[in-house]
Amino acid sequence: MTQHRPTETATQLRSVLDGAWRDLREEFRERAVPDQLLGEPGGSLEEQRERVTRQLTELAAEGYGRVGFPHAYGGERDYGASCVLFEMQGYGDLSLLVKLGVQFGLFGGAVARLGTERHHAEHLEQIMTGKLLGAFAMTEVGHGSNVARLETTATYDHETGDLVVHTPTESAVKTYIGNAARDGRMAVVFAQLITDEGSHGVHAVLVPVRDEAGNALPGVTIGDNGVKAGLPGVDNGTFAFDQVRVPKANLLNAFGDIDDEGQYVSPIDSENRRFFTMLGTLVRGRVCVGGGAGSAAKKALAIALRYGDQRRQFEAPGTEQETVVLDYLAHQRKLLPRLAKSYALSLAQNLVTERLEELHGAGTAGTRSQEDEEAQRELETRVAGLKAVQTWHALDTIQACREACGGAGYMAENELGQLRADVDVFTTFEGDNTVLLQLVAKGLLTEYKEMWGDLDQVAMVSMVSKQVAEGLVERTTGRARLQRLLDVAKGRDDDSALDDRGWQLSMFEQRADHSLEGVGRRLRKATPETAFEMFNNAQDHVLFAARTHVDRVVMEAFAEAVDEMDEGPAKELMDQVCSLYALASIEEDRAWFLEHGRLNTTRSRAVTAQVNTLCQQLRPHVSTLVDALGIPDGLITAPIAQA
Amino acid sequence: MTQHRPTETATQLRSVLDGAWRDLREEFRERAVPDQLLGEPGGSLEEQRERVTRQLTELAAEGYGRVGFPHAYGGERDYGASCVLFEMQGYGDLSLLVKLGVQFGLFGGAVARLGTERHHAEHLEQIMTGKLLGAFAMTEVGHGSNVARLETTATYDHETGDLVVHTPTESAVKTYIGNAARDGRMAVVFAQLITDEGSHGVHAVLVPVRDEAGNALPGVTIGDNGVKAGLPGVDNGTFAFDQVRVPKANLLNAFGDIDDEGQYVSPIDSENRRFFTMLGTLVRGRVCVGGGAGSAAKKALAIALRYGDQRRQFEAPGTEQETVVLDYLAHQRKLLPRLAKSYALSLAQNLVTERLEELHGAGTAGTRSQEDEEAQRELETRVAGLKAVQTWHALDTIQACREACGGAGYMAENELGQLRADVDVFTTFEGDNTVLLQLVAKGLLTEYKEMWGDLDQVAMVSMVSKQVAEGLVERTTGRARLQRLLDVAKGRDDDSALDDRGWQLSMFEQRADHSLEGVGRRLRKATPETAFEMFNNAQDHVLFAARTHVDRVVMEAFAEAVDEMDEGPAKELMDQVCSLYALASIEEDRAWFLEHGRLNTTRSRAVTAQVNTLCQQLRPHVSTLVDALGIPDGLITAPIAQA
Repeated sequence: MTQHRPTETATQLRSVLDGAWRDLREEFRERAVPDQLLGEPGGSLEEQRERVTRQLTELAAEGYGRVGFPHAYGGERDYGASCVLFEMQGYGDLSLLVKLGVQFGLFGGAVARLGTERHHAEHLEQIMTGKLLGAFAMTEVGHGSNVARLETTATYDHETGDLVVHTPTESAVKTYIGNAARDGRMAVVFAQLITDEGSHGVHAVLVPVRDEAGNALPGVTIGDNGVKAGLPGVDNGTFAFDQVRVPKANLLNAFGDIDDEGQYVSPIDSENRRFFTMLGTLVRGRVCVGGGAGSAAKKALAIALRYGDQRRQFEAPGTEQETVVLDYLAHQRKLLPRLAKSYALSLAQNLVTERLEELHGAGTAGTRSQEDEEAQRELETRVAGLKAVQTWHALDTIQACREACGGAGYMAENELGQLRADVDVFTTFEGDNTVLLQLVAKGLLTEYKEMWGDLDQVAMVSMVSKQVAEGLVERTTGRARLQRLLDVAKGRDDDSALDDRGWQLSMFEQRADHSLEGVGRRLRKATPETAFEMFNNAQDHVLFAARTHVDRVVMEAFAEAVDEMDEGPAKELMDQVCSLYALASIEEDRAWFLEHGRLNTTRSRAVTAQVNTLCQQLRPHVSTLVDALGIPDGLITAPIAQA
Repeated sequence: MTQHRPTETATQLRSVLDGAWRDLREEFRERAVPDQLLGEPGGSLEEQRERVTRQLTELAAEGYGRVGFPHAYGGERDYGASCVLFEMQGYGDLSLLVKLGVQFGLFGGAVARLGTERHHAEHLEQIMTGKLLGAFAMTEVGHGSNVARLETTATYDHETGDLVVHTPTESAVKTYIGNAARDGRMAVVFAQLITDEGSHGVHAVLVPVRDEAGNALPGVTIGDNGVKAGLPGVDNGTFAFDQVRVPKANLLNAFGDIDDEGQYVSPIDSENRRFFTMLGTLVRGRVCVGGGAGSAAKKALAIALRYGDQRRQFEAPGTEQETVVLDYLAHQRKLLPRLAKSYALSLAQNLVTERLEELHGAGTAGTRSQEDEEAQRELETRVAGLKAVQTWHALDTIQACREACGGAGYMAENELGQLRADVDVFTTFEGDNTVLLQLVAKGLLTEYKEMWGDLDQVAMVSMVSKQVAEGLVERTTGRARLQRLLDVAKGRDDDSALDDRGWQLSMFEQRADHSLEGVGRRLRKATPETAFEMFNNAQDHVLFAARTHVDRVVMEAFAEAVDEMDEGPAKELMDQVCSLYALASIEEDRAWFLEHGRLNTTRSRAVTAQVNTLCQQLRPHVSTLVDALGIPDGLITAPIAQA
């Protein structure tokens, strides 16, 4: 694809935003074929599904499905690369993106990570090439967030050596499952594993669901979720199983198996710990969803900013020509702080992707040491929080962009409507955002090793840890670098310039630490009898603490990235974008800072004024800042965004 | 339609929310036929359009199209009733609602209000019965908000007695016009009226666009806007005119005409004043859009609250059964303050509808006294502001409801997706919300009579009025009643209970007045040279002042309504809902109150705690509060919202 040539500054910024996998991104930009990645709005459900399946097959034929799978079975590149590729594909149609995610990430990923050699040898090549399309059947009608309570059963019959997969109630029906309604031939079914000894908690079993001709297999009832608010090209559907028998070998047995005597065996004793270890291997899904949402937000910003840079409406007095709408402060206010936040989130996304590769890359699968487990929990916490913040940001940003483009923004050809409709459910799937933020809070408040014992809603209450005050949780890598910036700022809050990076970091740190400590203090008073009520009464506080923790992680990622850049115009520009992100975030929560004596009223108002100033200062650089996002030219088709 | 029987309390609350046209609402509830009002998601554009047109014709056949038209030509009921009917129809499919609005409100309304007897006699019966479908062709490619700059021309040819309607440029093409792409046979075309003397500004001309067979007439090029982000059943399209001739009699001549000598004549001398008087007669469109959006928000809340009252997820410790999700504070926080705001906006909507009837009802058309004009401008200001706040509230609320329903909320059968997609553009059409809030600020800051002279972007700057401080602008009717509540509260801010109505009102008053005064002070320093820049730099401040003015009007409407109720459980409940609205609004802006010394930090945090408490106190009454909305049972089809 021909890319229009960005300025030197834009190129430098892009390289920073591209991060560790910048070569992969560049390769994608060159190779991306719009027809293989874009949708056509308005077709029927069946047309959209057919198109998406065709595109998936084409991309698989070009080898895109191999990224991140074990090289021993034909995989290519590394695990982190699969997330980066997903991000880049997020500039295309999101139905296709989700379909790719279901096939290669969820279905393929579960076989790769929860299965063992026998599953890999038999299925991975077929999965990577798109010849075996599969589903990831976790969610049930009655249970979305509370996966531990799934009702589907997989009962071992030692007589025959079969696992009997069954849907005992209406609420146990698998639903919203991608690849179910039309294409999937096999499903990874999450079910309570039962042997003669009793139940062993949720495990995953490979269950064939359709024959070669596409008909449901005996005992499998397949439904179609039909029309949704978005993602028309994804064939979400339902599965119900009536005593469906599969060989014991279909149990994905990396973390639990049934031996030849019919005994359950697992390297992990605690059922809870086993469950969370299994789920933990699937953390990539959340990394990808956050990254994909981030791409959607960036694409919307590119469209709205390019349009806002051309569209004129209302003349200033004494002039005949109308004013370019992006010259209005209100328009800048709508778009530029969101652009700054997209920059910030990109950089944070890069860091979690790198960390994912470190912990889950080649040779890291299988059980782990205590130390690894803590690192894994820390990653899960960060990923959960970033997923929530990225997806809400995307939703909010695409909507703001739609409104900023007026009636034109509502026309399908200008892409924002579909983007908005599609990305909506990103806030729900792979973990409901509100539930995820609670996970973040729990991760911060709970000593990991104790978490294994009891993971219900308020286990954390009785275990609020001294870790909080001691700050044992490492948030980002370049700690020393940040500490240097922070040290300079300490103790002179009200005198620091608002663009002092150390002061900004210190504000994010204070907001996160103080709110978390506050939650800790409140919850520590709980007794077993009052625990639920106390936790519930503090829920808004808990969610605030979690979100501000994520904000801090994001800000630290941004500050580090700026600090690492070579001096010059690109760094100066990036520094302003970072300040805009920081100050807009502080402004949003300035009530909290005022309430807690972290800002006085004069300074609080100065923050608002400085956000305005930064918007106006960045205004002339909008085209550079959009180019730096590196969205492949051919993937933005909106007529209003063309030069 | 059978309506399930609400409790006595719910019935009383409903009566208050129903307001002056409660009989019409009750009649609608009894008569409404779901098949005539609901859509079916997922059909093709053509299917949706066909269905909507059929429904419109059916409703017209039942007489719904006659509401609000002059009785002399077969109209029924009053002008305000047409808005209330629109609100009630807003519980059905929103494509149908918009189509009804285009036909009876915009097209029919323009003929009725901008036309005179000759147009009424010839067209109204055909319009009311849906036999003549028409379009309201105002927006052009190049001009949406800035209507005064429309480029289409209507040039009088005295030789032939024709008006020649013409589209001189690409940017003059009419676009996003409902009823254009498929159904409209005639259009009210807004164009610069030109006679031999020169241009007289924007006027409306009736232009036939299709023949009986549905083919475009000579010189008329009709385009199709195609797929949009929502409203699939509305046939938005484009018109371009190539020297299209219509008789001079087609000029809608209530405010300007061409006499037999070819001279332009008008009862209003100033072109600006004439333009705004013409637009002013169309204020009903904004009343309707606000009301329709309000209904969409209420329907979404009913769905999400009913589901939240049944859905369980995660067990509390020591219990086997999972917790009902609406028992979680976070869930209450998502939905209940928005429900309270829906109550508040309903009551404010009722007041503007009554005021519209007073000013625009039977016998009020035509030119007016100075006093009438001031009342008219005041109404326009209030309507503009309420439309912006209602439509943003709807968008935000439907989204929160969607997320609160998780994956189920994303399924088309549960209605939220289509509601969300459809209501999106309500923030843009009938006036972009941001532009409308600026209008509000202008209305508040400018002496009306001076406004006629110059209405460009910053005319207000040089005219900031002493009115601000003197509070000349009357906001609601029962001023004495409110004053009594306010007087009690004065001077003891920090001691008042948070549920003291007078204190709450005073907080809304202070926020609105102080921010408006602040804007006034900033803008008064402007000179002609610096005016644009100063206005632009203050734009966020201007928008805040406008929004808080609307908030105040809304709060006053709510406070009055509660105060008027008879003592008893219904009033007690309504009182709590009012407090929740008030405190959630104060909480949202607590940074402002802190910055301006209107709250101290202790009290600010107490507001947050009290919002939580009110959510928990209202929780047991959710079903009553939903019933009180009075949404016809049969119009909520979402499976998740059924008992």
